[in-house]
Amino acid sequence: MKKIITLFVLSLILVSCGNSDTLNNIKVNSIEALHEAIKNSSAGDNIILANGVYKDVEIEFYGQGTANKPITLKAETPGEVSIEGVSNLKIGGDYLVVEGLHFKNGYTPSKNVIQFKINDTLIANHSTVTNCVIDAFTQPDRDVSDHWVEFWGRHNQLINNYITGKSNFGPTVMVRLDGNQHVKNYHQIINNHFGPRPRKGGPHGETMQIGDSGTSMTPSHTNVENNLFERCNGEVEIISSKSNNNTFKNNVFFESEGSLVLRHGNYATIDGNIFIGNDNSQFIGGIRVINTGHWITNNYFYNLKGETFRAPLAIMNGIPKSPLNRYNQVTDVVIAYNSFIDTKTPFHFSVGSNVSQSDVLPKSEIRSARPTRTVIANNVLYNQTPFDFPIKNYDKVDGVLFKSNYTNSDNKSEVKPEGLITTNMDVTVVSPQLIVPKLANGNVYSGFDFETIDTDLFGNKRTADNTTVGAIINTGNHKVLYDKSNYGTNWYNTNKAKTEAKTIKVSTSVQLVEALAKANSGDTISLQPGAYLVNKELPISKLITLKSSDKNNKAEISFTSNTTAFSMQPKGVLHIEDLILKGNQSQAAFKTLDKNMSSAYGLWLNNTEVSEFNSVLEVSKGAFADTVSVANSIIKNCKSGIQLNKETNDKGDYNSEFVYVTNNTFSNVDANVLNYYRGGYDESTIGGNLVFKDNTVTNCGTAETENILIKNRGIVNVEFANNTFKNNPVKVVAVLWGEKDQKPENNTITNSGEIKVVQNLKLKLMY
Amino acid sequence: MKKIITLFVLSLILVSCGNSDTLNNIKVNSIEALHEAIKNSSAGDNIILANGVYKDVEIEFYGQGTANKPITLKAETPGEVSIEGVSNLKIGGDYLVVEGLHFKNGYTPSKNVIQFKINDTLIANHSTVTNCVIDAFTQPDRDVSDHWVEFWGRHNQLINNYITGKSNFGPTVMVRLDGNQHVKNYHQIINNHFGPRPRKGGPHGETMQIGDSGTSMTPSHTNVENNLFERCNGEVEIISSKSNNNTFKNNVFFESEGSLVLRHGNYATIDGNIFIGNDNSQFIGGIRVINTGHWITNNYFYNLKGETFRAPLAIMNGIPKSPLNRYNQVTDVVIAYNSFIDTKTPFHFSVGSNVSQSDVLPKSEIRSARPTRTVIANNVLYNQTPFDFPIKNYDKVDGVLFKSNYTNSDNKSEVKPEGLITTNMDVTVVSPQLIVPKLANGNVYSGFDFETIDTDLFGNKRTADNTTVGAIINTGNHKVLYDKSNYGTNWYNTNKAKTEAKTIKVSTSVQLVEALAKANSGDTISLQPGAYLVNKELPISKLITLKSSDKNNKAEISFTSNTTAFSMQPKGVLHIEDLILKGNQSQAAFKTLDKNMSSAYGLWLNNTEVSEFNSVLEVSKGAFADTVSVANSIIKNCKSGIQLNKETNDKGDYNSEFVYVTNNTFSNVDANVLNYYRGGYDESTIGGNLVFKDNTVTNCGTAETENILIKNRGIVNVEFANNTFKNNPVKVVAVLWGEKDQKPENNTITNSGEIKVVQNLKLKLMY
Repeated sequence: MKKIITLFVLSLILVSCGNSDTLNNIKVNSIEALHEAIKNSSAGDNIILANGVYKDVEIEFYGQGTANKPITLKAETPGEVSIEGVSNLKIGGDYLVVEGLHFKNGYTPSKNVIQFKINDTLIANHSTVTNCVIDAFTQPDRDVSDHWVEFWGRHNQLINNYITGKSNFGPTVMVRLDGNQHVKNYHQIINNHFGPRPRKGGPHGETMQIGDSGTSMTPSHTNVENNLFERCNGEVEIISSKSNNNTFKNNVFFESEGSLVLRHGNYATIDGNIFIGNDNSQFIGGIRVINTGHWITNNYFYNLKGETFRAPLAIMNGIPKSPLNRYNQVTDVVIAYNSFIDTKTPFHFSVGSNVSQSDVLPKSEIRSARPTRTVIANNVLYNQTPFDFPIKNYDKVDGVLFKSNYTNSDNKSEVKPEGLITTNMDVTVVSPQLIVPKLANGNVYSGFDFETIDTDLFGNKRTADNTTVGAIINTGNHKVLYDKSNYGTNWYNTNKAKTEAKTIKVSTSVQLVEALAKANSGDTISLQPGAYLVNKELPISKLITLKSSDKNNKAEISFTSNTTAFSMQPKGVLHIEDLILKGNQSQAAFKTLDKNMSSAYGLWLNNTEVSEFNSVLEVSKGAFADTVSVANSIIKNCKSGIQLNKETNDKGDYNSEFVYVTNNTFSNVDANVLNYYRGGYDESTIGGNLVFKDNTVTNCGTAETENILIKNRGIVNVEFANNTFKNNPVKVVAVLWGEKDQKPENNTITNSGEIKVVQNLKLKLMY
Repeated sequence: MKKIITLFVLSLILVSCGNSDTLNNIKVNSIEALHEAIKNSSAGDNIILANGVYKDVEIEFYGQGTANKPITLKAETPGEVSIEGVSNLKIGGDYLVVEGLHFKNGYTPSKNVIQFKINDTLIANHSTVTNCVIDAFTQPDRDVSDHWVEFWGRHNQLINNYITGKSNFGPTVMVRLDGNQHVKNYHQIINNHFGPRPRKGGPHGETMQIGDSGTSMTPSHTNVENNLFERCNGEVEIISSKSNNNTFKNNVFFESEGSLVLRHGNYATIDGNIFIGNDNSQFIGGIRVINTGHWITNNYFYNLKGETFRAPLAIMNGIPKSPLNRYNQVTDVVIAYNSFIDTKTPFHFSVGSNVSQSDVLPKSEIRSARPTRTVIANNVLYNQTPFDFPIKNYDKVDGVLFKSNYTNSDNKSEVKPEGLITTNMDVTVVSPQLIVPKLANGNVYSGFDFETIDTDLFGNKRTADNTTVGAIINTGNHKVLYDKSNYGTNWYNTNKAKTEAKTIKVSTSVQLVEALAKANSGDTISLQPGAYLVNKELPISKLITLKSSDKNNKAEISFTSNTTAFSMQPKGVLHIEDLILKGNQSQAAFKTLDKNMSSAYGLWLNNTEVSEFNSVLEVSKGAFADTVSVANSIIKNCKSGIQLNKETNDKGDYNSEFVYVTNNTFSNVDANVLNYYRGGYDESTIGGNLVFKDNTVTNCGTAETENILIKNRGIVNVEFANNTFKNNPVKVVAVLWGEKDQKPENNTITNSGEIKVVQNLKLKLMY
């Protein structure tokens, strides 16, 4: 392992934080005064921004500090200075430090919130952003792409910040390498807390990206160390490493629905990281490996249920002579001394193999080059409940050397390497997540350069006579796997207090509208039995439950509003239970804003009747639902059903992450019942999730122009079972995608066309 | 510039050469004794191979030396131990040294003559081959591929050797990087003399290749320093760098028909090299640039006439998102402080641009990505005879920054950057090749990291206040550009004494046969007037001239031999002047061996009559002529003409480098007059050269099945002018290739079909 230059980093922190008493303090309380102070600043200056709100400001912080005398721009009190509105910060020069700012209630007018250059000739070097927060500083329009922190130059640092809530396109943190001034950058991204990033639906939702395919041949040497990634669910890549010689060390990936992906570039070091899943999610991954020469050591994988692209350890197949932006073969990779605890099937080989699709894809898309010259050694696999299939292979496994790997389960996988040995293990459960198996008799393999793996996950020395496999030699003083308080700022409380949810009872339309306006997020509005006439759309921009107070005597709301009954707005999550909703045939029951759907919304219907609407749900292109769920309900006499079909850029994006349609009765829905679309061939956008089960569909599709009752084109994960279709005058009930293992199960079809299964769907190539 | 670790190298040389008095000397005089000595060797042993010839030996030299006590295998007297026959040497272990061996009169039975590993687990590290010669140790069959020195492992060295005469397929020196044991190798290839390598015709004739496209993402750190490359004419790439971080420093490329090519991989350093051309050759190149981050500094280019791929400085266009084995875009390259002396048009930009061929090539072959983020600064251009076109561009030049470049000529090129400045220069001519222009008023540009260019070509310090552009600040004690005696071994004389050529007179067939057998290479056989009847083929394996003693009364040789009149054999170069050659309609006039054409042959006819043969020239697949020239001659009554059409692998190879057909009369040649073929699309095999001028062709092609009189398919360079075609019953006289600027000039065609020009030839892709 290359030694990480933490000493250097620490000394810089000390310099930037320690000796402010010797500095020249300049306090400013307006943006104009700040600009003037910056203009006049010199090495050693300490520009203090007075507490307050600074709105619609574009700050260019430039100057020439020195290693001993940086120029600092800091909040008077960390967290008491907020940058709001249409605002951003650009940094250019040497040894500049930014401390304690809070970006909130706004978004950037440019491509970045914080940018480590002012222009192409004024670039930041040796500069630091620390103790800052960027919280939901997201574009009003999700489709507008930006980065919140964009690195340029060399030796810049992002330390002890808290960054959360980006829901628009674009990686949260981006390292740019376009030019000799920016390569071999040794940027330090350490001790940060990357808070939740919501699901984005499709690509470009990384929390961090280092380089891009066009600069993937450059040495970056970016160090990502000791950060917490908490529920970073933007897409399948939490971190996308796209350059050479990057280091990922001692980071914690907590319940993040993606992987640390070595997408482009080579010779990464991934050492001592912790990946934590949970019992519920199939989406939480570990490390995905592409390219050459990576060393993956001392990592701890716990309770991960991801598979294929999100497997705990996904080793991909490459494309022979791959185009620059596609998939190189995996070669010369070392995977040693890792612990896989309760990960069931940690090893997935030849992920992405798609030789069977040769007739729908061009040759330059066929991943047939298997991993080679790859060593997997000294790893330990422990399942508290034994699980006998440690290896999943999508192609032959003929280029991987297994040595001295141990498991406490049998290996009944197709691939049974000699170097994966079933043995008894003693186990120490230090805490629920910190589980350390010990072998009675182990034996470590000493591969080429293995002597450089000289510590374990906790920094214990690996001596030549130590035969401990896995990431942990001993836990020492560690009582837990990691301590959340070690990350982020020293002032921001990431554990927001929850307000107590209350129930508001209403019995008239006026009360209903008022209650909705004044309800807090999480509240329930309970409707007394009776008829409610609502003549304007009801806006939903928070978490709200609407329900009948008596489920056996449902309240009935009739809408005469124009466009829609409910206006689904960013962050609006609407649960409707036990209601009757009636339209006047002209409006949608639910409809998103036409634009500025900055964040995801959600819609849950249960035991509800929806009738006489133009459509059940209509969305705009940029609108994204985390979940649309319709259950135990009656949908009838509508012109069309659930319409999630406007994200047609054909670049892997789609309008909802999850769509659950279960145990409903659809009748007299004139066009299709559901239209859920995802376009664009790219195997790494593996989303779209549809469950269509236990429904009865009758007399629908009479006005369906494409003759398909349920449209799910391009959606990757589909369950389609136990439905009854009767007297629907269409040719096709649904088209399922065989290559994604979609198959109809136990459906009953009477006078309603057929369910087709197409093995290979022809999709537009994204690249 | 990264500092070269010459100190380390020198200390190793001292260790290996210096203290033999403290070593354990073991003298052996047989291969068996050698094997035994190797088997029993330990650190500090000095195994001395007694003078003599060791034939058909495969030596495996293994052991564990140390830095202070290497194990050495050395000749008793350098050069007095020759390894001959079917032999090779493999080295495996640490700190092994091989000294003073002479490989000659043979070839390797394996893929390498000297290989730095014995097998995949016994690899050489810190081992050295020095003071050895490999001379024409070439495969009998040119088509059999091998490498003469193949590097594996790390820290191995090739020092002070002389290597020459490889004529078969495969780079002379190859560095392999397939595996972590072999990357970051810091191999040292220094002080060697790479003697002439003949033209090979097509690809795979490099003198050195470092990595391949499949391992081009690995850091190699191979150092190629202070070597002489003399007439290394194997192909367009003298050196093909295909990995990262290689260094090429202070090498001399003397009249070598190719370039130092940065083919794959990035971040090469090319510093202080000398490229010398001559007045005659258009093939001698400089540096060809592909990929990212190279620094090309302090190089001296003299009298180079190469263009496009062989330009003094060829900056290529890349393929957007290029496949791994094709052409990446040029980015982030620095070209600074170079001297271009008498190079006319040193800068060729967007070489390889082929956008116009979009309809015959797939998208993945179209080089449309122009160089970007590239800096050209502080270079000097000096032409003793002013030449006003310093820049040739094959596409827009919009990504290159020119700063402080100076020329003594005007710039009338299409591209006129402000940073290329015409100025007066004083000039010091130290020696004919060592010419140093001095500017009256210069000004150097200080680009990013330019302070690391801290010396000039001769090692003079570049101080901050020095404003000298170009490679040389001052010449100091250097009276010549380089000294040939500084390279290669301390014992081998590379200047072979020439034997005096003599003339042997003959007047009978018997005398002729005898004279041919006993003649030395270079001799002339003079035939008295009269008739000679020869009933067996005449073998030609040396340089021989056959001529009539009286050109006005030509001798006439009639052949009744079976297959051919003359058997063209390796190294056979036959000049025939003023003769009449007659066949009996069944044999060829000239024919190569069917196999084992290990080296090139040549054929020159002048003022000679050839008639009544089955064909003029027939060749086998592996046969390669440097030149076939037919001039001022009469070819008549043959079934077919000059047939150079057997190399049909369609991988860029062909049967003759040059074909000159000038001022001849062809009549009654039944099939085609000439068939000269090169197949396979690869722009970097730019060979095949045909001059077809001033000929008269009458009544030919009557039996030509393809209806083409002169076939030159795939030949890149064609002149076709001033010919007369009369009464040849074909549809097509010839097909010329428009994209290669081929056009018919001043031909007269009567009753003979037409000359076609096809803009884009459809060829089989080589990759």
